[in-house]
Amino acid sequence: MVIPSLIQHKRDGHPLEPGQWAELIREYTEGRVPDYQMAALLMAVVWRGLTSEELTALTEAMLDSGERLRFDGFPRARVDKHSTGGIGDKVSLLLAPMVASCGVAVPMMSGRGLGHTGGTLDKLESIPGFRTDLSLREAKAQVERFGCAMLGQTAEIAPADKRLYALRDVTGTVESIPLISASIMSKKLAEGLTGLVLDVKTGSGAFLPETSRALELARTMIGLAQAHRCPTVALLTAMDRPLGRSCGNALEVEEAIQGLRGEGPPDLMEVTYALGVEMLLLAGTDQDAPAARARLERSVASGQALSKFQEIVAAQGGDPRVIEDPELLPQADEVEIFRAERDGVVSQVEPRRIGQAIVELGGGRRTIEDAIDPGVGFVIPAKPGDAVKEGEPLASIFARNRDGIRLGLQALREAILVGERGSLTPLITHRVTAAGVEQFR
Amino acid sequence: MVIPSLIQHKRDGHPLEPGQWAELIREYTEGRVPDYQMAALLMAVVWRGLTSEELTALTEAMLDSGERLRFDGFPRARVDKHSTGGIGDKVSLLLAPMVASCGVAVPMMSGRGLGHTGGTLDKLESIPGFRTDLSLREAKAQVERFGCAMLGQTAEIAPADKRLYALRDVTGTVESIPLISASIMSKKLAEGLTGLVLDVKTGSGAFLPETSRALELARTMIGLAQAHRCPTVALLTAMDRPLGRSCGNALEVEEAIQGLRGEGPPDLMEVTYALGVEMLLLAGTDQDAPAARARLERSVASGQALSKFQEIVAAQGGDPRVIEDPELLPQADEVEIFRAERDGVVSQVEPRRIGQAIVELGGGRRTIEDAIDPGVGFVIPAKPGDAVKEGEPLASIFARNRDGIRLGLQALREAILVGERGSLTPLITHRVTAAGVEQFR
Repeated sequence: MVIPSLIQHKRDGHPLEPGQWAELIREYTEGRVPDYQMAALLMAVVWRGLTSEELTALTEAMLDSGERLRFDGFPRARVDKHSTGGIGDKVSLLLAPMVASCGVAVPMMSGRGLGHTGGTLDKLESIPGFRTDLSLREAKAQVERFGCAMLGQTAEIAPADKRLYALRDVTGTVESIPLISASIMSKKLAEGLTGLVLDVKTGSGAFLPETSRALELARTMIGLAQAHRCPTVALLTAMDRPLGRSCGNALEVEEAIQGLRGEGPPDLMEVTYALGVEMLLLAGTDQDAPAARARLERSVASGQALSKFQEIVAAQGGDPRVIEDPELLPQADEVEIFRAERDGVVSQVEPRRIGQAIVELGGGRRTIEDAIDPGVGFVIPAKPGDAVKEGEPLASIFARNRDGIRLGLQALREAILVGERGSLTPLITHRVTAAGVEQFR
Repeated sequence: MVIPSLIQHKRDGHPLEPGQWAELIREYTEGRVPDYQMAALLMAVVWRGLTSEELTALTEAMLDSGERLRFDGFPRARVDKHSTGGIGDKVSLLLAPMVASCGVAVPMMSGRGLGHTGGTLDKLESIPGFRTDLSLREAKAQVERFGCAMLGQTAEIAPADKRLYALRDVTGTVESIPLISASIMSKKLAEGLTGLVLDVKTGSGAFLPETSRALELARTMIGLAQAHRCPTVALLTAMDRPLGRSCGNALEVEEAIQGLRGEGPPDLMEVTYALGVEMLLLAGTDQDAPAARARLERSVASGQALSKFQEIVAAQGGDPRVIEDPELLPQADEVEIFRAERDGVVSQVEPRRIGQAIVELGGGRRTIEDAIDPGVGFVIPAKPGDAVKEGEPLASIFARNRDGIRLGLQALREAILVGERGSLTPLITHRVTAAGVEQFR
């Protein structure tokens, strides 16, 4: 295998053979292809893209670099949800127990926050004692027993992806739809799923803000999942403002618990139910969306979803009392209210600025090694389109000290604009399946 | 300096600042930017190109990574010639002594053969004792004393280029006109020249076979030289067949000596004179081409060019008796004649196949570490357009053993085609200066 020739071939716009991708990823993972050759190849891929055949082969090779969850003989459907990431996006925390309490297995592998978006693992770990570093063996046993496990990408899963991701991060090769798709799907396909739902965020706080790019990502991941025989549906959801009200690790756990009690903010519940409906339909528990939605609502109303969450928390070493007493979650030392400085209409609640501010407050990471302060963040009831009066509370800041409060106030002043007019964009704009794209409203 | 952001910027098609290029190359040369980041950036440059401002800055940075020849107070014009490389291209061996014997200083820094094209250093080193590893101090002293030194790129010259070239070679990033230009010019500009002539080859045996690409390279290098105040002229010359008759290191030295005696093959002499005329015009020894040409012809007819060559050989430790007795050069053990298999017209003498065959015979390198057998090669009097009879000799093979002869016969059978018709393309097709492109015939 002559690597420079392969790089030249890709550079000149020609696809590589599936077997070449397989060998390349194997040799790279085993340290026989150096990072500098892989970096040049990755940039050529950013440039030239990948054919669907190449993308399938690359993903397969990344998947094959590690282990997978195997549920041979396990009778239940296994469905997961993946989000491309946003601010205030605590949907996984509600969705996994809700869907699991409906009898569908949810082997949920999540990530950590990096940059301006949060990560499910960090949120879960704000629950005292909660362990996310389950081995595949533990995860499988827990899924088979409780119907759900919420874990991180173990060292056993797609190690090629781990190495490639670290390399992409430092070589300007992150922003490639096929590379993003291969990275996500190599992990999701390792979960042994029978179906997958994607929450692809759009708007200023999203990884890919433009709808056209978000749609391309959705279509690419769906095509890839189909090639691996994993039926997949994507919803495009709004990330031009935070989802729900709370932003910050422990604050989001608290809001998720409220949601599981049926008391969550309407936008959060709407997205959660919509994604849950897709998961149940993929699992085959219901024949149509209204029936699936009713089943999910029952799981909340009956308290089954909440007790499933409590079961998971306990199973993973977390303190189950937080469900009844959220004050057991890490708390901020300082709280301050941010008020409207004029009468008007909220024209913007910029999620990216909020996400950056959480990092500044210590609640997110600049580098993968950073420790996290789980208690800090924001609660922002204000939404674009809300009419407000001068002096009316728009948000609260939760910080470790007065410096944090000052940083937080500054961020809110930049993020939340009150003007003459403003309106809320639709929450869920597109539904994408292998059959095509359905646009709402 | 945040390298991933710079890479992303270039990747997205935006130019980097001159200061950013300077810092990047400095940090890379000093080992603080890893190869994998530079490899990704190089691929982004292959993709996006460089603005002339970026190209000038990059070249300057590469030049500044090392030393240069400084001729402060030295009164003579200093002109060099650079060729993009071909088969049978021994022009430097004739040109340096011819021009030096006309009173123009020629500080000539050359390369080694790699792949299918030969290198001047390898040819010179087939002269017993000849040293090409002169230090800059030795080279300067020799230029001041004899008007010419023929040396390799020392460790002192553009070390950044050396490291970048090695990286490009293994990352599929060689074929980029700005990167090629920066690499060539960072070395040439280190020679302390007052003028430079470029021999840009075109045709199947050339590095860039297409005329349009060769012209682009010529224009890019001329623009770059101009930005560094080094007047430069380029000729585009044919490399769709070997230049002259002999191909292989010692065989080419022998032909060069014949040429310096005025007995070289007409195509070789034509290219040599044309390039020499440009060198003399740049040096200002003559006002017009006919006068410069006459001066060069006199230097040959009078024997001055040949004795200048002998002087250089002796000064650099070579055996000066080879000039009178070329049999002192390394000889092949086996010689065999290749004959026409039918009556007809030579339609093709494919130079790339000949170059590959020299490597197969041991006369060239596959990797930079390979040793070279200087005695092997071909003498090919046949040119496209020649009418030939069955059984007539077309070429001779010089090999180490019978296996080599077999390899050589096979290569000639593939390279030299005799058919119904054939013709010689023009030898010199374009002249490129800062003012524009002049096309001949």
